[in-house]
Amino acid sequence: MVDITVGIDIGGTNTKLGFVDREGKCLVQASVPTNAQEPAETLIIRLHNKIDELQAQIREAATVKGIGIGAPNGNYYRGTVENPPNLSWKGKTDIVGLFHRVRNIPVTITNDANAAALGEGLFGVARGMKDFIVITLGTGLGSGIVANGELIYGADGFAGELGHTIVDPDGRECGCGRKGCLETYASGPAIAAMGIKAVVQGLTTRIGELANYDLNRITPELIYQAARGGDAIAQDIYERAGFYIGIAVSNVLTMVGPRKVVIGGGVAQAGEMLLEPIRRTVNERVFIMLASEAEIVLAELGTNAGIIGAAMWAYERITNQEYKEVRIE
Amino acid sequence: MVDITVGIDIGGTNTKLGFVDREGKCLVQASVPTNAQEPAETLIIRLHNKIDELQAQIREAATVKGIGIGAPNGNYYRGTVENPPNLSWKGKTDIVGLFHRVRNIPVTITNDANAAALGEGLFGVARGMKDFIVITLGTGLGSGIVANGELIYGADGFAGELGHTIVDPDGRECGCGRKGCLETYASGPAIAAMGIKAVVQGLTTRIGELANYDLNRITPELIYQAARGGDAIAQDIYERAGFYIGIAVSNVLTMVGPRKVVIGGGVAQAGEMLLEPIRRTVNERVFIMLASEAEIVLAELGTNAGIIGAAMWAYERITNQEYKEVRIE
Repeated sequence: MVDITVGIDIGGTNTKLGFVDREGKCLVQASVPTNAQEPAETLIIRLHNKIDELQAQIREAATVKGIGIGAPNGNYYRGTVENPPNLSWKGKTDIVGLFHRVRNIPVTITNDANAAALGEGLFGVARGMKDFIVITLGTGLGSGIVANGELIYGADGFAGELGHTIVDPDGRECGCGRKGCLETYASGPAIAAMGIKAVVQGLTTRIGELANYDLNRITPELIYQAARGGDAIAQDIYERAGFYIGIAVSNVLTMVGPRKVVIGGGVAQAGEMLLEPIRRTVNERVFIMLASEAEIVLAELGTNAGIIGAAMWAYERITNQEYKEVRIE
Repeated sequence: MVDITVGIDIGGTNTKLGFVDREGKCLVQASVPTNAQEPAETLIIRLHNKIDELQAQIREAATVKGIGIGAPNGNYYRGTVENPPNLSWKGKTDIVGLFHRVRNIPVTITNDANAAALGEGLFGVARGMKDFIVITLGTGLGSGIVANGELIYGADGFAGELGHTIVDPDGRECGCGRKGCLETYASGPAIAAMGIKAVVQGLTTRIGELANYDLNRITPELIYQAARGGDAIAQDIYERAGFYIGIAVSNVLTMVGPRKVVIGGGVAQAGEMLLEPIRRTVNERVFIMLASEAEIVLAELGTNAGIIGAAMWAYERITNQEYKEVRIE
């Protein structure tokens, strides 16, 4: 008999879940479609059923001690997901409450980037560190900041929105209604949009050819392939994304002084193509006293960081006095 | 017999000190010239003698339990002041070590803005709050960030350098060697420089007249007087400073989510003239979920915040296990 928690990583397209033991080992995992155009209830039912399936699947009997969820705009204080940018649930969705209707165990939620930061801090590239930041580059651009050994939630539970820090006050219009947010330069869709624009403008690039002239097939991965093949326009797109991430990272270093900056999420698969301009910009732009010390590295846990972090978050909350008050027995 | 700690606030021109009891009451205070062109040793001797004078002055016998120092680029981890921007001490100056040569009591140092944040959090406008930031607008532009109830020092002890976050990647050259730092738009010298430029350019403003056409007399206070009198150029200078502080505050809110933003230091004496454009910019520019919640207010402790904060810092460190290891008995 082994104690596990279920780690759930809610994404725009798919929601991943896994049974994770206290050592951060993922015993079994699966995925269900998020179908965010439907009400959140339907996702909760799919997850509930999938948890039962997974329990039947694993050889060793497992006691599910709790469920930890990482979600875009997940709010730990309220148990909610609030106006998630890439899901169509409107307003505040009481995810923890919905889960409690179908499953009588402790459930806790946090921001997906915070879950990734917990994962990297416990079992990844930031193991044992007290001051670090994890940046997740995907459909959105999030971050989890650990300072003095603790995740920073802020007064409202929404701290760490690096993607909506302003890197140019006169910059691009952002989906959030503001201007010059980092997300408009360096998220997956922002990078794809730069590739599409280059093709539409008729610039000399292989991006269009690689996508078979189907603009919908222009992704950060495809642009990365072009860049690796020596395409100057594609390289310039990663250069620009890296520059603006570098500006935002400089500001984070100057404000909260992490020792390590961990870059994860799908877009980070571009590796050095992205890290090199980030590092260069930080070296040129960060306040001198902080420049020498911080390492900028790739995440280690890969696509499982979210699941593992969310599961660890559940362990932490379950053993925490505060949590017991809201626990349903 | 009353227990006190000595709070010391090292400034570019003068260094203030005071005897502060555990309730944050300043029993007696004084000031010595910093004379930063001389070696730091001479300042320490002046402070040492002044402490003796103050002890003789107060009626009630006081036991000095320790000394807390707030200084520009004060580093709590190392007991040093490192390359202070507005003092001519080069490299790392071991202030704690120098004090220990002349006075056999616990001495501890921190950044001046961190000391102000401690003061405001204990006895000022952020009393009892767990998430807030204090911004000090003076010769430099510093900040102390409290998150989860703790000051953020960062891995190197230099976190909170809001003045060197980048508010415009193509912006003005900064004394730190980088570009577009907030300090180039909103510190005391930056505001004075904008006034001087307006006069030199022959713009229609009363700033020159108010300064008797002596450019050295153009200060943030004088520009504030002109602005209050309806001078549009002077008002525009505060508008611009407020705009850039607003961009930086938006980024801080988005990253660390303080509930309150406290504006202090000499330049903050402009009050609403400065706060109004800061608030307006934040409302227009901050990520929507955080906009409604944070209050932007003036500091309460005024010019004593640094002394009181540094003294409280000493109490905190003296009663802290860690500190005892480096204490000289």
